[in-house]
Amino acid sequence: MKDQAEVETPHLPTELLVCVKCRRGHEISNEERRPGKVLFDTLGAMDLPGGLRVTAVECLSNCSQGCTVALRGAGRWTYIYGNLDEESQAETILEIAAQYNATADGLVPWRQRPEHIKRNCVARIPPLEI
Amino acid sequence: MKDQAEVETPHLPTELLVCVKCRRGHEISNEERRPGKVLFDTLGAMDLPGGLRVTAVECLSNCSQGCTVALRGAGRWTYIYGNLDEESQAETILEIAAQYNATADGLVPWRQRPEHIKRNCVARIPPLEI
Repeated sequence: MKDQAEVETPHLPTELLVCVKCRRGHEISNEERRPGKVLFDTLGAMDLPGGLRVTAVECLSNCSQGCTVALRGAGRWTYIYGNLDEESQAETILEIAAQYNATADGLVPWRQRPEHIKRNCVARIPPLEI
Repeated sequence: MKDQAEVETPHLPTELLVCVKCRRGHEISNEERRPGKVLFDTLGAMDLPGGLRVTAVECLSNCSQGCTVALRGAGRWTYIYGNLDEESQAETILEIAAQYNATADGLVPWRQRPEHIKRNCVARIPPLEI
């Protein structure tokens, strides 16, 4: 008989929030997709670990340091990361998202985080306790 | 008979999170209170509107732009504000906290926010929908 720690209970879902309005400092015409939308579309087309979903958000209010994403889930710390490139860093985002998704509390040891993520944490928020 | 909008239902509690570990860029000896702790103590001693509570947090991970606070509550947007002075800006924090506390969704119109708050929003996170 497995003890409680060994029972494979799926964690609550993890959300990867992506600011789809982000211009990342560029002049963007109405016809062009914004960098944040490019990033969202790229992440949405990738093979995501179970329990992780990608959610579009209109402005995470980190406009001077975009592109911006956040990782959050019930009972977990929320982390916000910035200065992300929509073309070259989708894999990096997916790497920290998978690490985060594998935790119960959202705390990924600092040394294990991808290099860009180590240096570009905008802020974090503790879990909501009601 | 009052209609539903007129019934005075108290909002869910609002939390004002204060990073008590913040050094705000200073060298701090072990004997000194850190700026974040000074800010927390000051806010905790102030007359707070009903439904607002001040909570100490150990690191909101905005260390280069402290002091840092966050406003959050169930069903509301979470806002993080930085570059706050522990000596002179407790009143400003309480002003935006009272405005936030009076909303149901956490959205305080930009023009109504105190000047420092307008310019020093670190990030915001939408309400958690489960």
